[in-house]
Amino acid sequence: MATRLGKQTIALSKSVSIINTATVVGTKESEGPLSPFFDVKMKDAEWGEETWEKTESKMQKEAAKLAIQKSGKTADEIDCAFAGDLLNQCISSGFSARELGIPYYGLYGACSTMIEGLSLGALSIDGGGMNTALAVASSHFCTAERQYRNPLEYGGQRPPTAQWTVTGAAAAVLENGGSGPYVTHVTSGKVVDFGVIDQNNMGGAMAPAAIDTLCAHFSDTGRSPESYDLILTGDLGRIGREIMINMMNSNGYNMNDNYGDSGCMIYDIEKQDVHAGGSGCGCIAVTTCGYIFRQLKEGKLNNVLILGTGALLSPTSSLQGESVPGIAHAIALSNKPGGEG
Amino acid sequence: MATRLGKQTIALSKSVSIINTATVVGTKESEGPLSPFFDVKMKDAEWGEETWEKTESKMQKEAAKLAIQKSGKTADEIDCAFAGDLLNQCISSGFSARELGIPYYGLYGACSTMIEGLSLGALSIDGGGMNTALAVASSHFCTAERQYRNPLEYGGQRPPTAQWTVTGAAAAVLENGGSGPYVTHVTSGKVVDFGVIDQNNMGGAMAPAAIDTLCAHFSDTGRSPESYDLILTGDLGRIGREIMINMMNSNGYNMNDNYGDSGCMIYDIEKQDVHAGGSGCGCIAVTTCGYIFRQLKEGKLNNVLILGTGALLSPTSSLQGESVPGIAHAIALSNKPGGEG
Repeated sequence: MATRLGKQTIALSKSVSIINTATVVGTKESEGPLSPFFDVKMKDAEWGEETWEKTESKMQKEAAKLAIQKSGKTADEIDCAFAGDLLNQCISSGFSARELGIPYYGLYGACSTMIEGLSLGALSIDGGGMNTALAVASSHFCTAERQYRNPLEYGGQRPPTAQWTVTGAAAAVLENGGSGPYVTHVTSGKVVDFGVIDQNNMGGAMAPAAIDTLCAHFSDTGRSPESYDLILTGDLGRIGREIMINMMNSNGYNMNDNYGDSGCMIYDIEKQDVHAGGSGCGCIAVTTCGYIFRQLKEGKLNNVLILGTGALLSPTSSLQGESVPGIAHAIALSNKPGGEG
Repeated sequence: MATRLGKQTIALSKSVSIINTATVVGTKESEGPLSPFFDVKMKDAEWGEETWEKTESKMQKEAAKLAIQKSGKTADEIDCAFAGDLLNQCISSGFSARELGIPYYGLYGACSTMIEGLSLGALSIDGGGMNTALAVASSHFCTAERQYRNPLEYGGQRPPTAQWTVTGAAAAVLENGGSGPYVTHVTSGKVVDFGVIDQNNMGGAMAPAAIDTLCAHFSDTGRSPESYDLILTGDLGRIGREIMINMMNSNGYNMNDNYGDSGCMIYDIEKQDVHAGGSGCGCIAVTTCGYIFRQLKEGKLNNVLILGTGALLSPTSSLQGESVPGIAHAIALSNKPGGEG
């Protein structure tokens, strides 16, 4: 049986492995620093589809199929898929799941969705009811822009705090047993809202949630930043990352040495004109399934804590005067079953 | 450890009880046949809020608080909330979770969300990582109409196949142990799409998914309709219910005696001008947490199979020519740990 630690963390009892992963990314991501770690690089924003929404759904489906194939499995051998995206009613995931034919639980954790999916997939396997599970998430710059902001043709100006939605989909196959990397701990996040109302400052809005979950994880497990080779947040970007470091420091945790943010890693922020960095469900998804998975497999990293971060707003909630609530879900990955002990 | 049965079903190993529930409904639901089973009956569509979206979020929050209170617990004692709704980016759930301060996994299963939440909550408790969990879902006629269809002021005409979105929120507290009713089995549904493109015929679009999951449940468990006092679907309405009965009959299962649909039960379809019946996340949520929970507690029902049904479309997917995919997730509830026989 899994063990509950403190208020928010679960230590898994079994060795639940990420067997394999796959990633599909857009052109801008293919030109960024993490390019060597991605599987499929689209040549344009459409990938042969008539609409960007259909493209995003295809990205999820192809990432899922490739991850299953790389795991040496068939879709029929996957017990359940946990998937989500940013689009209204999560259509990228629903239509992808229609094609895959795998039992499917739809998730909405905004940009934290991939980590929510890995959490619930790992917990379901640990509980014995599933032997395999698939976690999938996606975002697409063009679908996100027109849904959350303005038609692309409008050419809206973006303030320096704005982030660039990653065009990317990733999938990971989880299984009971295997040779790792293992999901050893899951920390479930609370919704935290510091009253940020600027929709163009998602990093600032989400940082308090990341801090809350990270402090809970340390408090629940007795761990500290030194327990990990890398602590990685999803998409705080340049602004949120700085808040994170400063606030964790004032909470007594030194984050100067081994803390990274996917939103700051996936693009060359200076050269690629992405303002404060990357964002979107795809950001932490392709970074984890591409770069991090490879580093763990090659032993260049051995213990990683990943915090998926999400902003739980909608255009409607903002128009109605609401602030931007954030959430962060964490999973600990280790090459040793049970983790760094 | 939980046991996997067949392709889609999990038999829980522990006695996971629904400790208590709470429901909040609108005026039309208060005038319907299930009225005596609801806790809070709003006097109008606003409940003192400035927008219907804020009302819906308040409904979730108040249902959750009341369910926790009726369970003799405090929010601090709930390990995790699983919640969702129909609104873009699930804002009813996100903003409610902000107020509750409970670790929160956001779900999107369209109108099947309550059953998805009960499934994942029960599995998480069964796995040992949680001792308590909360499942919450909501819908609101006015928020759904303006998001999915037309401004209410427009007074759009509805075809006879259309359903009426339930204004309702419900919450259930799950716990390891307790005196039941117990969640004994979880059957995870696949996305099924028979190509229905009429957004005003959700019952027809969702029925194939309900049939698929129900057949899987019977095949996985060796059970049959006679194993249950009642088999209840979420919101197939008058049209979908008839398809369900006919198709199950042609699959060799007699559904004439003990099959009901929440969408047909929550309103007096003839008198309340709801065309084909009720729909929305709130439909199966308030029926399960109000009526069904009470019947189980009083021993009037002892074994119930509930199939939450969802239509995974969005206005965008329909405008882009997509059909309406359906999904159905099932849970078996029993007054005996482990269920019947």
